[in-house]
Amino acid sequence: MAQINENYFKLQAGYLFPEIGRRVREYKKENPEADIINMGIGDVTQPLTPTVIRAFHEGVEEMSKAATFKGYGPEQGYDFLREAIAENDYQNRGADVHAEEIFISDGSKCDTGNILEIFGQDNIIAVQDPVYPVYVDTSVMAGRTGEYLGNGYYDRLVYLPCTVDNGFIPEIPKKKVDIIFLCYPNNPTGIGASNLELKKWINYAVRNKAIILYDAAYEAYISDPGIPHTIFETDGAREVAIEFRSFSKTAGFTGTRCAFTVIPKNLCALTSDGFAKPLHPLWFRRNTTKFNGVSYPVQKAAAALYTPEGKKEVKSTISYYMNNAGILRENLDKMGFQVFGGINSPYIWVNSGQGIKSWDLFDKLLHEAHVVGTPGLGFGPSGEGYLRLSSFATHENVLKALKRLENIKWNI
Amino acid sequence: MAQINENYFKLQAGYLFPEIGRRVREYKKENPEADIINMGIGDVTQPLTPTVIRAFHEGVEEMSKAATFKGYGPEQGYDFLREAIAENDYQNRGADVHAEEIFISDGSKCDTGNILEIFGQDNIIAVQDPVYPVYVDTSVMAGRTGEYLGNGYYDRLVYLPCTVDNGFIPEIPKKKVDIIFLCYPNNPTGIGASNLELKKWINYAVRNKAIILYDAAYEAYISDPGIPHTIFETDGAREVAIEFRSFSKTAGFTGTRCAFTVIPKNLCALTSDGFAKPLHPLWFRRNTTKFNGVSYPVQKAAAALYTPEGKKEVKSTISYYMNNAGILRENLDKMGFQVFGGINSPYIWVNSGQGIKSWDLFDKLLHEAHVVGTPGLGFGPSGEGYLRLSSFATHENVLKALKRLENIKWNI
Repeated sequence: MAQINENYFKLQAGYLFPEIGRRVREYKKENPEADIINMGIGDVTQPLTPTVIRAFHEGVEEMSKAATFKGYGPEQGYDFLREAIAENDYQNRGADVHAEEIFISDGSKCDTGNILEIFGQDNIIAVQDPVYPVYVDTSVMAGRTGEYLGNGYYDRLVYLPCTVDNGFIPEIPKKKVDIIFLCYPNNPTGIGASNLELKKWINYAVRNKAIILYDAAYEAYISDPGIPHTIFETDGAREVAIEFRSFSKTAGFTGTRCAFTVIPKNLCALTSDGFAKPLHPLWFRRNTTKFNGVSYPVQKAAAALYTPEGKKEVKSTISYYMNNAGILRENLDKMGFQVFGGINSPYIWVNSGQGIKSWDLFDKLLHEAHVVGTPGLGFGPSGEGYLRLSSFATHENVLKALKRLENIKWNI
Repeated sequence: MAQINENYFKLQAGYLFPEIGRRVREYKKENPEADIINMGIGDVTQPLTPTVIRAFHEGVEEMSKAATFKGYGPEQGYDFLREAIAENDYQNRGADVHAEEIFISDGSKCDTGNILEIFGQDNIIAVQDPVYPVYVDTSVMAGRTGEYLGNGYYDRLVYLPCTVDNGFIPEIPKKKVDIIFLCYPNNPTGIGASNLELKKWINYAVRNKAIILYDAAYEAYISDPGIPHTIFETDGAREVAIEFRSFSKTAGFTGTRCAFTVIPKNLCALTSDGFAKPLHPLWFRRNTTKFNGVSYPVQKAAAALYTPEGKKEVKSTISYYMNNAGILRENLDKMGFQVFGGINSPYIWVNSGQGIKSWDLFDKLLHEAHVVGTPGLGFGPSGEGYLRLSSFATHENVLKALKRLENIKWNI
């Protein structure tokens, strides 16, 4: 008798984005003329840049001739891409990361989910609250949490509240944890972490033999020179951290699919009888057994991002979005919203300043301004009262949305 | 203290393909002039066809303009591809499979590994022996087997021997099993399964409430009209089977990456208290949480395979490989090898007929003919004595290899 994985039934049905979709569809049905501006989902709107497109076409062309055709590639990615990443994203920043420590993948969503496979089942996992829901849901599905406790909490998962009182920078947990998901620049709060802040977590991890799973998907949006772009810029990280990076938001690859994960060769976890064993060979084995690498033309396109032209183009796309972010920040602030993020991140984390709950704020903006945000509560209990707005919309839509938000009536 | 997943240490270090690589490199070092023909790995050599290349370029071009740019796509794949598959691969063959039951992925290797996630941890898994190593290794890594017992066997895994005595068609297991991996046309033996044979397994699964994980990656190579291309051509399969399909071997997508998995909406597994629950929503949830879909231009390229031109081109590439297979079969047979497969599959399963063990046969062909095969023992204990030869080599290399094999001295 084939048994089902019952951990899936612990998951809460009302998953964030489908629920948003449902409410928007319902409103649209009753108000078919409404011109809805979606600032909810974190998807990009600007096309791939010319240099990337050129390399992508070249990769496709190579697949058309026997002499240049590529069959199975190395599961961990082609050296040309791994080397470009090691040099440009790490070594040029003074971070000690080598090409063979980089694993190319088709997405950070996959990697942050799958990475748990190389860890034992009994580790205690800590997550920031609010948090990118994938870390939590994956942990639940893999039976690494207990039951749902209500109010957004699962048993056995340790929540690290990020609130206005701590500047959205969580305290070290009182309970000892084994695996810590950290996301900086943070999704959803938009906050960046300083070297000092990261050092605090690295010290904790060293002391407790814990592992930090560091998601830096938004590093390209950092504007403050004091904020590190990779955890490996901070001393000691090689002993305790795995880093996830993606081309999705950096270069508009959300529909093209390419990302990477860095596992330092010296990073270890423990066997049940206390021996330290390196994690790199396990991830290598996992990927060679369960993955066949990223499409060759896609890797070729990603490598073009590291050419001088490619870099210039990426910078310009990011400026476009960050210009949106600046305008959003400034104007929402003027309107009386409490505004966070948007300086080192494309996300703006706003609170009505009127004590309105997340879903009520969501509905208010949808109904009165036809603007869709993401309810902060959907990211975790500490997100209550907030809405995440994304600056990935087009510039025209950002201006239009702001104009409409100005006309919202608050004192009711 | 972060604990490592110790199941990985049960895996046997001498993994098949790295060991082949080591022996070839060693031989090459001592004999740098040797012109080695690789018929070992199952990778294609013919480029993507013109119709696919054209659609691939079009997909890339769409990514270059804001109006046609695609960000995040549906995790389960675009409807245009799912619908083309449902119609052409299923409905046109009289198999009752609908577009929404098809999940587009980046590879069957990933899917056959990841699928175990939606099943409970205590299911007893059966595999054919010899077998594609991914099913076994993934089960080991996920803690779904016991310890390594030596001689190629893991505890708690049920092996279904496929030998010359049973025509490489395994018997129904005596022990009750919950999940059965079946691969037809088979890798490595090259044997196809009839409707009657599949019906035997479906009946077993119905009786025992077991699930069949059916890997049909090589269906495009079936030449015998009596062999079904999908398990869903056989009555009752929708109640017990999940099917894995890939464009890798069908259309040369090994480096392009696209595949799919079919989960019928009515397919159920049991909760621990005996309630039947559908598996489709679990795989849907798994994929929306841990996967972000296949690259848009790749899906566009795959869809082109279902146009009249695309179909013609695919047929021609497959004829090219199957012509190789026929020549290999005929000539190896003349030379005194025992030859199987190669009629409904690109793989030829050969035995020296001289009582030589797999790795000795491998070494003999490498040293005396500079031809690389895959030792049958690497696929499982019942593969001892065999070698898998792939017809994916170029036609010229197949002829050259045969010429050399004729000159091997056997009676030593």
